[in-house]
Amino acid sequence: MPSAAPTSDDRQVRVLSAATALPGPPVDNAALARRFGMSPSWQEWVDVFIGTRTRHLSIDLETDEPLCTLADLGESAGRQALEAAGLDPGAVDLLVLGTATPDLLMPTTASVVADRLGIDDLPVFQLQSGCTGALQAMSVAAQLLRAGDHRTALVIGGDVCARAFDLTADLRTMPPEEMINAVLFGDGAGAVVLTTLPVPGAVTLRRVRTRLVGLGREPGQTLAWFGPNERDRGLPSVTEDYKAIERLVPEMAVEVYGELLADLGWEADELDYLLPPQLSTRMTGTIMTALGGGGRAREISCVTRSGNNGNGLPFLQLEEVLPLMAPGERALGIAIESSKWIKSGFALERE
Amino acid sequence: MPSAAPTSDDRQVRVLSAATALPGPPVDNAALARRFGMSPSWQEWVDVFIGTRTRHLSIDLETDEPLCTLADLGESAGRQALEAAGLDPGAVDLLVLGTATPDLLMPTTASVVADRLGIDDLPVFQLQSGCTGALQAMSVAAQLLRAGDHRTALVIGGDVCARAFDLTADLRTMPPEEMINAVLFGDGAGAVVLTTLPVPGAVTLRRVRTRLVGLGREPGQTLAWFGPNERDRGLPSVTEDYKAIERLVPEMAVEVYGELLADLGWEADELDYLLPPQLSTRMTGTIMTALGGGGRAREISCVTRSGNNGNGLPFLQLEEVLPLMAPGERALGIAIESSKWIKSGFALERE
Repeated sequence: MPSAAPTSDDRQVRVLSAATALPGPPVDNAALARRFGMSPSWQEWVDVFIGTRTRHLSIDLETDEPLCTLADLGESAGRQALEAAGLDPGAVDLLVLGTATPDLLMPTTASVVADRLGIDDLPVFQLQSGCTGALQAMSVAAQLLRAGDHRTALVIGGDVCARAFDLTADLRTMPPEEMINAVLFGDGAGAVVLTTLPVPGAVTLRRVRTRLVGLGREPGQTLAWFGPNERDRGLPSVTEDYKAIERLVPEMAVEVYGELLADLGWEADELDYLLPPQLSTRMTGTIMTALGGGGRAREISCVTRSGNNGNGLPFLQLEEVLPLMAPGERALGIAIESSKWIKSGFALERE
Repeated sequence: MPSAAPTSDDRQVRVLSAATALPGPPVDNAALARRFGMSPSWQEWVDVFIGTRTRHLSIDLETDEPLCTLADLGESAGRQALEAAGLDPGAVDLLVLGTATPDLLMPTTASVVADRLGIDDLPVFQLQSGCTGALQAMSVAAQLLRAGDHRTALVIGGDVCARAFDLTADLRTMPPEEMINAVLFGDGAGAVVLTTLPVPGAVTLRRVRTRLVGLGREPGQTLAWFGPNERDRGLPSVTEDYKAIERLVPEMAVEVYGELLADLGWEADELDYLLPPQLSTRMTGTIMTALGGGGRAREISCVTRSGNNGNGLPFLQLEEVLPLMAPGERALGIAIESSKWIKSGFALERE
């Protein structure tokens, strides 16, 4: 497949913009306690031991009716990212979306978002993935741009986790490892625009790394879908092994942090910003400790206010860090997927 | 993201092998008629007007119990493809899988297959897609190989369509457009090994083209998934607009056929093999007619025996065509996705 474009050595991938969309108003722990009939002491426990204060949900907690779809959130984030980049939808010649919770199996949410944005006649890919789907989408988009057939990619990520949880269940009788999901997770989406076109002073996506390291490891998290005749098999919708998650996620975050620095020949003290994984406020704290506090790098975290909205999270961090980055400054982001253990990270540098 | 590898102009992507896996014994139309209490005249109608004679199903028609998962089929196809290529799993440094019907939402079937094949510490991507997922996976893998960070990719595609259909339903009272799904679809998976390493006399993947062209078009096919609290909303699991499919699929097949030839500077009469879409025996015939019979190219079709097993189909065709291709011979394959209208195709040439 020959290409007349310049060699990949010349093809720096630049991040033109980032934007996000969160559904509804923030839902605080008191609202969760009211909805699920939990006690004030439970609420205190969430405040202190989980640390997540609010999240946004794609369903109405009073009626259990959906408030919005992933396509709604992806469309909003994508539209804002294009506007922030000063681009018309027609400038996009590649769209990649990463999610664990697509609206349908067919058509893809990526195709629906493209349609709504007026984007057509281009390759559109949707990556199925847990918490590394946003970085997988950035990795695939960046490599496709480098391969030379495309110039400007809209990359979207997000999740509507509320669909996966049974909100009619009684939290008071649930085992803690199930109950906690109602607290940890949130919904949301985000987008970035990537391009190989030269843009003076842009932030360059220097590297995206994503590695499956699941060999011989049991999944730390599973999420099922059901066909029309399958709800009677008694299979759980969601499972988690929080012991494995608490042990392995910080370990894998440290690994990918070191691997990215080594790939780039960067020293830890040359980092200006660190975007750690956002599983929960407490876990992010544990990971930051495992990373030695990140040295002099400023931590960019959002989970306390957003909850763990899966593939929306990295875009919330990107939206915050991009305007902060001065010329020459460097940022490193990390996302870990506990489903079958995928470690991923990316590195940014302002020209 | 600079790379020390040669420029993409030197990076031809070669197809080392193809392999497939089909579940259980072939299920003929008589067996379907028995299972669903349909008449002999129904069976004749299927034989004559659909043309599909057998398919393979991932469920036991007597008990409705699953016989195998997509991971089972993908593992088998992947293992055979690696063996046929003479490669150890360790030689694979990229895995891409395309499906509309993953076993779970998390972990991905791609990650599970990697684990079972002993493949680890590499990027693994799963593309969510209807009937163009196999070609999307080949496109992404080929471009990632060309981008230079990877050398050898295992590409897998497949579907377990049986999960999406309610086989407890009464076919006799179903509208024809729903009933027909029980006839058209089958299950199966396949795999190819792609590499940029030089292999004398190999088949080169000269081009993969995949374009969303859904702007303003209603989906021709939808496939829902259900969370734990969603089965009561009365939403259909599967919908089809067969009128739109019958009109647009041949039209889009003709388009992508012409676009690929133009991309490559090939003439239609230089094609030795043509791998048309495999929706049903009758639709494949209609498409071949729309393609002018394919000129002197030999048609490679499998749907009469395999049914429409979605993202498994192109691998059944590849498994058949690769050993037939003599030096200098050319083949062109087409897949159309009616979900939100994606046209895709690929071109092969034996060195």
